[in-house]
Amino acid sequence: MKKSKKGFLVSGEYLLAGPDGQAIENGAAAVVSDKILEVGTYDELKERYRDLSDLRRPSGLIMPGLINSHTHAPMVLFRGMADDLPLKTWLEEHIFPAEAGLNRELIALGAELACAEMIRGGTTSYVDMYLFEETIAQVTKKAGMRAWLCEGLFDFPSPAFESGFEALKATRNMALKWRNDPLITITVGPHTPYTCSAELLEKARDAAAELNLRMVIHLSETRWEIEEIKRIRGVSPVEYLDSLDLLCPELLAVHCVWLEEKDMDLMAERRVNVVHCPESNLKLGSGMAPIARLIEKGVNITLGTDGAASNNDLDMFCEMDTAAKLPKGTDQDPSVVSAGQVLAMATTHAAFALGRKDLGVLAPGKQADLIILDLDRPSLRPCYNCKSQVVYAAKGSDVTDVMVAGRLLMEKGELKTIDQEEILGRVKEIKSVFK
Amino acid sequence: MKKSKKGFLVSGEYLLAGPDGQAIENGAAAVVSDKILEVGTYDELKERYRDLSDLRRPSGLIMPGLINSHTHAPMVLFRGMADDLPLKTWLEEHIFPAEAGLNRELIALGAELACAEMIRGGTTSYVDMYLFEETIAQVTKKAGMRAWLCEGLFDFPSPAFESGFEALKATRNMALKWRNDPLITITVGPHTPYTCSAELLEKARDAAAELNLRMVIHLSETRWEIEEIKRIRGVSPVEYLDSLDLLCPELLAVHCVWLEEKDMDLMAERRVNVVHCPESNLKLGSGMAPIARLIEKGVNITLGTDGAASNNDLDMFCEMDTAAKLPKGTDQDPSVVSAGQVLAMATTHAAFALGRKDLGVLAPGKQADLIILDLDRPSLRPCYNCKSQVVYAAKGSDVTDVMVAGRLLMEKGELKTIDQEEILGRVKEIKSVFK
Repeated sequence: MKKSKKGFLVSGEYLLAGPDGQAIENGAAAVVSDKILEVGTYDELKERYRDLSDLRRPSGLIMPGLINSHTHAPMVLFRGMADDLPLKTWLEEHIFPAEAGLNRELIALGAELACAEMIRGGTTSYVDMYLFEETIAQVTKKAGMRAWLCEGLFDFPSPAFESGFEALKATRNMALKWRNDPLITITVGPHTPYTCSAELLEKARDAAAELNLRMVIHLSETRWEIEEIKRIRGVSPVEYLDSLDLLCPELLAVHCVWLEEKDMDLMAERRVNVVHCPESNLKLGSGMAPIARLIEKGVNITLGTDGAASNNDLDMFCEMDTAAKLPKGTDQDPSVVSAGQVLAMATTHAAFALGRKDLGVLAPGKQADLIILDLDRPSLRPCYNCKSQVVYAAKGSDVTDVMVAGRLLMEKGELKTIDQEEILGRVKEIKSVFK
Repeated sequence: MKKSKKGFLVSGEYLLAGPDGQAIENGAAAVVSDKILEVGTYDELKERYRDLSDLRRPSGLIMPGLINSHTHAPMVLFRGMADDLPLKTWLEEHIFPAEAGLNRELIALGAELACAEMIRGGTTSYVDMYLFEETIAQVTKKAGMRAWLCEGLFDFPSPAFESGFEALKATRNMALKWRNDPLITITVGPHTPYTCSAELLEKARDAAAELNLRMVIHLSETRWEIEEIKRIRGVSPVEYLDSLDLLCPELLAVHCVWLEEKDMDLMAERRVNVVHCPESNLKLGSGMAPIARLIEKGVNITLGTDGAASNNDLDMFCEMDTAAKLPKGTDQDPSVVSAGQVLAMATTHAAFALGRKDLGVLAPGKQADLIILDLDRPSLRPCYNCKSQVVYAAKGSDVTDVMVAGRLLMEKGELKTIDQEEILGRVKEIKSVFK
C-alpha cells in the first residue's frame, strides 16, 4: 500500500450497501480519511477514484463492521476457567476470587487479547462494562477499535475503586478526558438494580444526563433477580428502574430475559434499547429472552456476546446465528427473526442505540467501519443470499480484513495494530495467576 | 514428510487420551499404518519411535476426529437458498423443486464440497442419508473420509429410484459391494414413519437384520408428525416403530424432538441411539429435544448437523456448543449437559451407536482418526480446560490437521485429497442451476 495515497477503493464480489444492506455485485466503496465517500460497483468507481489505494478482494463480501453491544472484555482471561457449574458456585468460588486478583497490568493484557479476538472476528465497535476502564480505553485506542466504555458501579468495593460513588467520580473524569476522542466514548454503568442502591442509581442517572452519556445496566437477567427486587421493592426490576426515572432512549438494558407483558410495554414506551446476549443467557442457565415479542412491540434490540467467561468467545457471527435460530425453536416458527433482522441488531440497531447514525451502514458520509469476509471457503459456497450466508454460515474466522474509521486493523488475516504473537506469549503465562 | 517412514509420531501441547479424553500435556500418539500404537508424552515416545515421521504441532491440541451422526451431504448445494420461511413453503417451493433437478454429477459435486467442509472442520466420519448414495460413497472414498451411507427409502419416486423398494434393492447391492471396505459402510435408510408404508419399514428392517447393517430414520421431528401418526396409527411414532419391531440397538433415530415420557422409556429399553440435531431443530422451528431427560434415562445420544440447507453449515464444533448451551437455557440449570458429555456425543457415543469401539478414542489399538487444533489463536487462549475450549470456544476453522485411518487428509490447513480451488470454481456456477 503506497503511503502517498489518501484512502482506499475497497472492492469485492459483493458489498452490502445502505441501511437495508442490499448486496451490490462487484461492489466497491471509496474511503477517504475516516469516511465513505461513495458506494457502487467497482466498474463505476474505479475510474473516478484512481488516486485511492486499491483494496481488491475478488471473493470478498464487504459489509459493515459488527458492533458487540455488551461484553466485559478482560474476562477473556477467565475463558473456560470454570464451566457447567451452578451460577452461585461459578461466581463465588471462581469468578469473584479471580476478579479480586485483577490489577491494571492484567486488565491491559485481557483487553488487548479481547481486541485481538474481536478484530479477527469482524467486530469494529464494542460496548464494555468492567473494572479499570481507563486502562481498557487506552488499550482499545491503541488497537484502533471503537468502544463505549463504563466502569461498573455497585455498592461494594472493587479492585479499582473503594465505592460506587468513587467509581462514578472516575467516570466523570474519564468522560471529560475522552470527550473529543473519535473512537473512545465513556458511558455510565450502574451494574444492576440489586447491586446498586437507589441513591447510586439516581446519581448515575444524573451524571449521564448532565454529561450527555449513554447508560448501561444489567436488567432482568435471572428469575432470582425478579423475585429479589419484587421482594424488596414490591415491583419488577423494569418498573423499579422506571420509578427512579432510569428508563430512557439513552439506556442500554442488557439481558432482559424475564419480562412481563407490562415490562415490555414500558420499555417500548420509554424507548429503552435492549441488548440481547442469547449465548450467555443459555450457558448460565438464565433462560431465553422474549425477542420475537419485543420486536413486535417495536423495542430496539442490539446484540452482545457478554464476557468470554460465559460464552466462551467474542464471535458476533456465532451470536447472530444463535439469535436467529433460538426464537424459531422456542416459538416453533421458522419465519420469526430473520437473518436480516439479526444482522441489523449487530449493525444499524446498535448504532441507533448508541446515537450514532454514521455507523453500521456502508453509505456516503458514514464512518468507514467495514469488514471483508472471504467467500472462497467450502463453508461459504454457493452464496445465494449474502445475509443468510453472513448470519447462518459465516464465522469470525472468515473475516480477512477489518477497517475502523478508514484505518486497516487487519489486512489479509494479519493484525496491524496488535502484536498477536507477543500477546499470546504473555497470556499463556496467565494460568498460574488464576489457578 | 519422507515417504520411507511407515507412520507418524503426532505430538502437540495437549493430547486428549483414552475414553475419558484426559488431557496429556506435551502429548503424543504413535501411528503406524491405520492404527494408534501408543499414546503418552512426547518425551516418552520420541526415543522409541524414531522411525516415524515427526508430525509436531507445538501449540496443537490433538483429539479424536469428530463424527457427524446425521447429514445430507450434497444439500450444501442448497446452503442459504431459502431461509426464514414456513416449513411447508421452504420444502415445497424451494427444497423439493431443487432436489428434483439433482443428478449424479450434481450429487458428486455437492458431496465433494461437503467433504471439503467437513475435513476442514475436523469431522473424520459422517452418517449420511440422501439420494444417489453410491456416487456419494465413491466421492467420500476418494476424499479419504469414513462414512455410513444410506439411500433414502420412501413411498414415492426419487430422481434416483422409481420406488422405495427399488432403492432398498440398490441398498442391498451397495452393501455387498462395499462390504469389505475399511472406510465406507452402507446402512438402511427408511426416511420417516410417515413417508414409508408399514411394508417398506418392515422390508427395511429385515434387510438390515439380514445384512447386519445399521438403520437410520428421521423420528418424531415435528409436532405435525406426532399428530399425523397418532391420527393414522393411534399411537406415537416411537410406539408405532416398536409395533413393527424397528426399535433396536442398531437403529439411529434422528431428531426425537417430540417425545412423551413413555416414548423415552421405550427407547431406553430398546437401546435405540438418538441423533440430536439441535441447530436444525431450532432453525426449522421444530423445537428442542429433551436431551437432559434422555441422558438421565441412559439413552445413547450422538450429534449431527443435519443438512446445510437447515443449519447452514456442517461445523460440528458449533453444533457441540449449541448442544451444550441449549439445555442449560431450557432447563434453567447451567450444570446440565457438560462439555465432556457433549464431546462424548460427537466421538465415543457415535462410535458406540455405529458399533465401532475402535473409533472416537485416542488409545492403543484404535483407528488413527485424529485432528489437531491450533491453540495459538486469540480466541483459544488462555486454555485452562481442553474440553471447555473444544466445546465452547473452538470452531471448525481452528483445525489445522486431519488424519483418517493414518492418512493425512489436511496438513497445516491444506487439503490433501481434494482440490479445493477446483471444486469451489465449479460450485460457483451452481447458482444458475437452482435459481
